[in-house]
Amino acid sequence: MRIDGKAYRSAWREDGEHALRIFDQTLFPHAFEVLVLRDAGAVAEAIRTMRTRGAPLIGACGAYGLALALRDDPSDEAMTRAHATLDATRPTAVNLRWALDRVRDGVAALPPGDRADAALALADAICDEDVAINRAIGEHGLALLRAAAARRGGGRVNVLTHCNAGWLATVDWGTATAPIYMAHDAGIDIHVWVDETRPRNQGAALTAWELGRHGVPHTLVADNSGGHLMQHGLVDLCLVGTDRVTRDGDVCNKIGTYLKALAAADNGVPFHVCLPSPTIDWRVADGLREIPIEQRAGREVTHVAGLLADGRRAEVRISPEGTEARNDAFDVTPARLVTGLVTERGICRAERAALRAMFPDLAAAHGD
Amino acid sequence: MRIDGKAYRSAWREDGEHALRIFDQTLFPHAFEVLVLRDAGAVAEAIRTMRTRGAPLIGACGAYGLALALRDDPSDEAMTRAHATLDATRPTAVNLRWALDRVRDGVAALPPGDRADAALALADAICDEDVAINRAIGEHGLALLRAAAARRGGGRVNVLTHCNAGWLATVDWGTATAPIYMAHDAGIDIHVWVDETRPRNQGAALTAWELGRHGVPHTLVADNSGGHLMQHGLVDLCLVGTDRVTRDGDVCNKIGTYLKALAAADNGVPFHVCLPSPTIDWRVADGLREIPIEQRAGREVTHVAGLLADGRRAEVRISPEGTEARNDAFDVTPARLVTGLVTERGICRAERAALRAMFPDLAAAHGD
Repeated sequence: MRIDGKAYRSAWREDGEHALRIFDQTLFPHAFEVLVLRDAGAVAEAIRTMRTRGAPLIGACGAYGLALALRDDPSDEAMTRAHATLDATRPTAVNLRWALDRVRDGVAALPPGDRADAALALADAICDEDVAINRAIGEHGLALLRAAAARRGGGRVNVLTHCNAGWLATVDWGTATAPIYMAHDAGIDIHVWVDETRPRNQGAALTAWELGRHGVPHTLVADNSGGHLMQHGLVDLCLVGTDRVTRDGDVCNKIGTYLKALAAADNGVPFHVCLPSPTIDWRVADGLREIPIEQRAGREVTHVAGLLADGRRAEVRISPEGTEARNDAFDVTPARLVTGLVTERGICRAERAALRAMFPDLAAAHGD
Repeated sequence: MRIDGKAYRSAWREDGEHALRIFDQTLFPHAFEVLVLRDAGAVAEAIRTMRTRGAPLIGACGAYGLALALRDDPSDEAMTRAHATLDATRPTAVNLRWALDRVRDGVAALPPGDRADAALALADAICDEDVAINRAIGEHGLALLRAAAARRGGGRVNVLTHCNAGWLATVDWGTATAPIYMAHDAGIDIHVWVDETRPRNQGAALTAWELGRHGVPHTLVADNSGGHLMQHGLVDLCLVGTDRVTRDGDVCNKIGTYLKALAAADNGVPFHVCLPSPTIDWRVADGLREIPIEQRAGREVTHVAGLLADGRRAEVRISPEGTEARNDAFDVTPARLVTGLVTERGICRAERAALRAMFPDLAAAHGD
């Protein structure tokens, strides 16, 4: 997407450079710094500290991390070690493991001397595919927004989204935002309620920024607000991303997603989840019991980072000194609360048979 | 309750002083300043800016405000003007109007010269009654916590609360916190999940502080977390306060309460609302349609106040410059999601017949 007229991806390589470039997303929306990551350790650290984040994007970055590791040492042992290090950075999203496995399995049979270039080519391919996948998700999701606009008689369509499933969470387009950008570009009068998304404020910091730069009308709200907005008819549909979908259709996404899905169900508001197929974990059925939920530092809850009036960045503590906080990063929305899964192949119900019918090849590859 | 061993109320008068004293709650938990409010205008401003807040407490403060107005000018005209000014400060809680009406109606028949002293005595009485009411709420709610402890075989009881329905929101004890303090004092192993309560962070700033000062184990969580905690069996019951309950049992409370009630219902977790009877609005049946929801400044969402590492207070902006935010301060939880109403007379179902049976005198006084 474009920043001030210049096209960017969220992860890229410069010609001839053996390095991965990303934005330091922890500085958004107050500063834009490009980080140049030259080895697997730097990539792992950037993922762990969420300088780069978003399930599809950390998959792509992980793939580059493994490729950079192989440039330093193409041995089986080094590959296994780098795979493990990168995989351990974030436990919940499945895309990271998927991308790492794909690179490893794609180069394992090659002579060590050929592995680095092949891995880099695979990482490039994962990026290009992610862009194509998100574009396709956008086209399928656009149909939902066209239908909502028709129900409104051409009036404004209000979408609620949670966290950042935008182009900053993918290589380009975003998952939940792809339909929104396409609808806006197609002249549909669309407005987005942006959940702040405590504790890391990805909605306030990233989604509001993205939508603003593209000119999509939007309003920031506290995470507490969505139910009230739905009760009053102010939300036509919810569109969110996801970090892992089970083969039975349970959706793991940023903490708080489940609460919005409950409110959507209680108010008859369609709740759609946008995902690329690498987000489906065919090995897992019950999201509540089987998906590991990342526990992050309590400090993310007790402290808030932002910009002071004088333009300096700072962190303020909002609770009494020494207050302990618990910080589960994700929750699981049971499939029964999900109206539909918007994938690159189309929209299907959040249930096993529908997922298998949409992705027979992937299901079969996992013995499902 | 006690601060560092000294007993305080949240609103009080010093002997012989014609003024209301309150804590400036906007400075909590980082600083403790007592404000001395000497006229109705100062009281109205303190309520409007939430230096004093909480439905029962603003009722008490409003009563003092009217008494102070009558000391300056005891005429009918001045009384009507002060009543209107004070009543307009916050639209959602019903306790404010109830207390103002009680003082006005209690002194209207008196000669102007006698009104100020009589109004002050009424305001004092409202405070003393609030303390007694909250103590009784605590005793009834304690039975719920004892039962939960028994179900846990004496193991830890986990309560989730939202916003601050603590002693800082009342004259003393709190509504939702009264049972918690009593259970803790009675030796029940109780732990409280404290919702941060964006955008004003009353949970992080006030409830965490209160509980910490009293020694009640607690953990701060983002507002997004409650559903996840309930899905994993980590919440035995929810206890919240309210700003207005309709005669049919709909509960208006801090924005986000509805989402927690949905999660409680989805997970079979009891959801109890603690309230003094002045919080019941017998004139109103349908909370969603009839209760005015206060709209506050978007800046409360886009900016967060707290303490810098160097000990100075500061405000940081978390969203891009110019981002617009919507800030509904309250939402309505439909009666069907409420397990029980914990009042000073006992616990009843959130429905008209039960409320009428519990408060036949009040219902009759309002023609219900």
